[in-house]
Amino acid sequence: MFTPPLDEQRFVLEHVTRLAELGATDRFAAATPDLVDAVIEGVGSFAEGEWAPLARVSDQVGAKWTPEGVVMPEGFAAAYKAYVEAGWGTISAPEAFGGQGLPYALASVVLETLGTANMAFTLCPLLSVGAIEALVHHGSPEQQALYLPKLVSGEWTGTMNLTEPQAGSDVGALRAKATPRGDGTWSISGTKIFISFGDHDLADNIVHLVLARTPDGPAGTKGISLFLVPKYRVNPDGSLGAENDVRTVSIEHKMGLHGSPTCVLSFGDHGECVGELIGPEFGGMRAMFTMMNNARLNVGLQGVQAAEAATQKAVAYARERIQSARAGSGSPAPVAIIEHPDVRRMLLRMKALTQAARALLYYAAGMVDRATLGDKAAQARLELLTPLAKAYGTDLGCEVANLGIQVHGGMGYIEETGAAQVFRDVRITAIYEGTNGIQAADLVGRKLGLEGGETLARLIADMRAEAEDAGLRSLIDACEEVAGHLRAAAVDDRLAASYPFLTMLSTAVAGWLMERQGRIAANGDGAFLAMKRTAARFYVEQVVPEAMGLMVAAMAPADILYAVGPDEFAA
Amino acid sequence: MFTPPLDEQRFVLEHVTRLAELGATDRFAAATPDLVDAVIEGVGSFAEGEWAPLARVSDQVGAKWTPEGVVMPEGFAAAYKAYVEAGWGTISAPEAFGGQGLPYALASVVLETLGTANMAFTLCPLLSVGAIEALVHHGSPEQQALYLPKLVSGEWTGTMNLTEPQAGSDVGALRAKATPRGDGTWSISGTKIFISFGDHDLADNIVHLVLARTPDGPAGTKGISLFLVPKYRVNPDGSLGAENDVRTVSIEHKMGLHGSPTCVLSFGDHGECVGELIGPEFGGMRAMFTMMNNARLNVGLQGVQAAEAATQKAVAYARERIQSARAGSGSPAPVAIIEHPDVRRMLLRMKALTQAARALLYYAAGMVDRATLGDKAAQARLELLTPLAKAYGTDLGCEVANLGIQVHGGMGYIEETGAAQVFRDVRITAIYEGTNGIQAADLVGRKLGLEGGETLARLIADMRAEAEDAGLRSLIDACEEVAGHLRAAAVDDRLAASYPFLTMLSTAVAGWLMERQGRIAANGDGAFLAMKRTAARFYVEQVVPEAMGLMVAAMAPADILYAVGPDEFAA
Repeated sequence: MFTPPLDEQRFVLEHVTRLAELGATDRFAAATPDLVDAVIEGVGSFAEGEWAPLARVSDQVGAKWTPEGVVMPEGFAAAYKAYVEAGWGTISAPEAFGGQGLPYALASVVLETLGTANMAFTLCPLLSVGAIEALVHHGSPEQQALYLPKLVSGEWTGTMNLTEPQAGSDVGALRAKATPRGDGTWSISGTKIFISFGDHDLADNIVHLVLARTPDGPAGTKGISLFLVPKYRVNPDGSLGAENDVRTVSIEHKMGLHGSPTCVLSFGDHGECVGELIGPEFGGMRAMFTMMNNARLNVGLQGVQAAEAATQKAVAYARERIQSARAGSGSPAPVAIIEHPDVRRMLLRMKALTQAARALLYYAAGMVDRATLGDKAAQARLELLTPLAKAYGTDLGCEVANLGIQVHGGMGYIEETGAAQVFRDVRITAIYEGTNGIQAADLVGRKLGLEGGETLARLIADMRAEAEDAGLRSLIDACEEVAGHLRAAAVDDRLAASYPFLTMLSTAVAGWLMERQGRIAANGDGAFLAMKRTAARFYVEQVVPEAMGLMVAAMAPADILYAVGPDEFAA
Repeated sequence: MFTPPLDEQRFVLEHVTRLAELGATDRFAAATPDLVDAVIEGVGSFAEGEWAPLARVSDQVGAKWTPEGVVMPEGFAAAYKAYVEAGWGTISAPEAFGGQGLPYALASVVLETLGTANMAFTLCPLLSVGAIEALVHHGSPEQQALYLPKLVSGEWTGTMNLTEPQAGSDVGALRAKATPRGDGTWSISGTKIFISFGDHDLADNIVHLVLARTPDGPAGTKGISLFLVPKYRVNPDGSLGAENDVRTVSIEHKMGLHGSPTCVLSFGDHGECVGELIGPEFGGMRAMFTMMNNARLNVGLQGVQAAEAATQKAVAYARERIQSARAGSGSPAPVAIIEHPDVRRMLLRMKALTQAARALLYYAAGMVDRATLGDKAAQARLELLTPLAKAYGTDLGCEVANLGIQVHGGMGYIEETGAAQVFRDVRITAIYEGTNGIQAADLVGRKLGLEGGETLARLIADMRAEAEDAGLRSLIDACEEVAGHLRAAAVDDRLAASYPFLTMLSTAVAGWLMERQGRIAANGDGAFLAMKRTAARFYVEQVVPEAMGLMVAAMAPADILYAVGPDEFAA
């Protein structure tokens, strides 16, 4: 059960992303209103017809490891082929490589719709996006010509290979090796873990982007380079050669996202793993951040996907499930549970948080496109917003999925309803592509000080110029005060307060964008606008004040955290 | 991996439950400090040795339905036998029926320890407690003599049969029937769902307590009576007779708690299901509340169990996992992640919330014993605190389990660590025995007005007399203000605000009890007291202000919830 939220997607693209501004530029002139509509309606139908029906089997059967490679559940290969044929992966990719050159914001909507229908499956194209970005920005013309068209079309898929058992958040601790083979290629060796779609049977080839160390490089992150390692070697004419020396050792037994194989990959067991350097030697971290920044937005978008999926299921259940008379109504007739105040409160909260997450993500996506157009301020704002979009987007996804179970009552705990699947699936999003704690550290460590603090100051000024609600204005003021305090604070204090501050600032930004939407929807007719202004009002009136409750924690020094040591924690 | 938190249990029993006051009475004179110590240490060793080792198999293998009945995983039967032989189920049961007549508060500690080691397993004795309470308060002397000794010892187990497909929160909608057989017994028919441990192979007999309707009774809850339906009929001499006409149709496929079979039971398929009336005809609801009130406390206690389990796992992992240098330390050496501020913040929050939940539950348990001693004010306070203990206790359990996954990072999403199991297991506790929304409705519907509001007023006065922190005092004031507002509010407004208010009041009570503990621990030596005062300080300084952020929602009228209708939610 899945219905693409077309009215909502159009409305947010119009009033939050302000897509028309992008369509008015030469670069994005193709993004006419008609075309945009055709895309979001088309992917909606596609997702409903092809991907949503596989959501259950994705969870209940899942990807299976075999000695010959990972086998996806029945139906996945055909649905993926249909995805490639429809060109859903090509929206924002460069036209030179078979893409449509449309705004990234529009590609986000496509990804959102696919992921709401089937989150695990959509991780496959999501990872390809990272590989495409890395090659677009750091690949040689030859590499681009050889790999990008197939990645853009989706005939081949991409992966990101960062993590090793001892190197998770600490990328600099990785040990995978690359040694020159003397012919310009490199011999790759090492083990990578947590590689999503590291193997599968959906595409003809898999392009692994692998971080590894070259001989005699410096320790830590400075000695890391990025390599392209195809599952099957690629001949200069683009045809496939022999299988490369990459082995899928196992896949993880995870709490959710069973349709996304999380692989342990072993490179170069036989000394025959051939890779190509992407970008300059020791340029691995820079290339990684190119991959990860968009991946972080796309993971934030998974929060929106889960929230939308959970909300649709909960609303449908609450409208059907008849239970108890409405208290105080005078009638003994049992009613649908959506009529009960506390259930209604949960559903309205789910609606409001889903819309808030979407607004934040679509707004950030618009900044990607403005940055592409050369807008430096938009680039800076994007960098500031990326940790918010990733962490708050996924936190909201988790919260909404949790409420979705609660609305279902006992049936929410039974796997048959699918509410539990959303809850299990979304949980990883707060962890991968940089845990939400890492995002908070990025916010207070790097982003607060962007342009000497001007990036944040401009955002605050924009919010303040538009925000009307007194509570929202108080929160904006509080964010400014906390930010000023944190910029002057010691490292420990800054990090100790980072998470509460991230939530405060995210809520302020989302509140600003929600209030704007509520204002625009204030006098319109129809069910969608009525829901929009109600959700906006709920967010501003009831969610924003909760964030004010975090201010004490956001101003508190770290000393309390270190008043005791590790032994006391175990006492 | 499980270590019983003995120091903490002793401390909270001493300073929150104030167990010595109970031990000073004739009724509980047996509860000497030495005996209390022996019990909590004994059950700690037992749980560590017998039940904790089965926690993984409980989840990964789980209970299995077969045509011959439910089969528990290997090892459960032997561990249950050891539990019966050790007498861990007998602590607070009446001595007349083989119990030890010790305080309920001490029995709570026993249940907590068992459940921290293995939550799914512990649901079996937890359900027996409900059956025992119902029989103690509503059974005839003959019924008590026949059933209670075996239930108390644990040789037989008990179940609660309330829910039917159309009758969940709305118990009054149930349809199961009881018709007189002419010999004083009743013929039971109907289908019950969500029956925890409705069948298993651990004990010789299962005593089902079943709500059903007798002929010509009034509709709704007033026509409901409680029946005792044994799996095997019981002869007057206590020996077992023929199998009764109760069939286990299936067990549910749940997100967690796989070691607890959730059964669909069909009664009287062949017209041969014999039951006995417990208490008077139409007295079913009263008897049900007897079962459920303690069950609600015991479910709240499951929140403590999950929180403790999650915290122990997270602390152990965070001490072992080495990742990244400490920011700002000047040293490039990677450290255990417990040293990083945001990880430390999560761990301290886990500690503080776990202790807060435990304090609330142990405090309520002490009120059960004071009520047993005839203290009417304690009885009223218990009734007021029960929805808080159930809902807030389980909400904290869910939150701490969620943080536990986050501390583990990617490993938290992998089932091998066990962090995900705690998260999946605890989620049902916010739903069963009355959803947390039902608890909030109970709070604002029945409990605020107890004794004309005096019950709450006395609690507020007690908190105010002791609370020192300005933030905590503000929260207590706010609770009083909201409560006054809600008592005068329309039904819809009261229910719309019920959940935020429940969280505020629970936080105030827990804050009061945590601050007290911190004060007592202020000048002591040793790791436990250092942790205690730090956790108490964190709760009061950083968690209490968050609850103030809910005040706007707790004062908001319901109109926003009904500004749109069900169709708009689906738009």
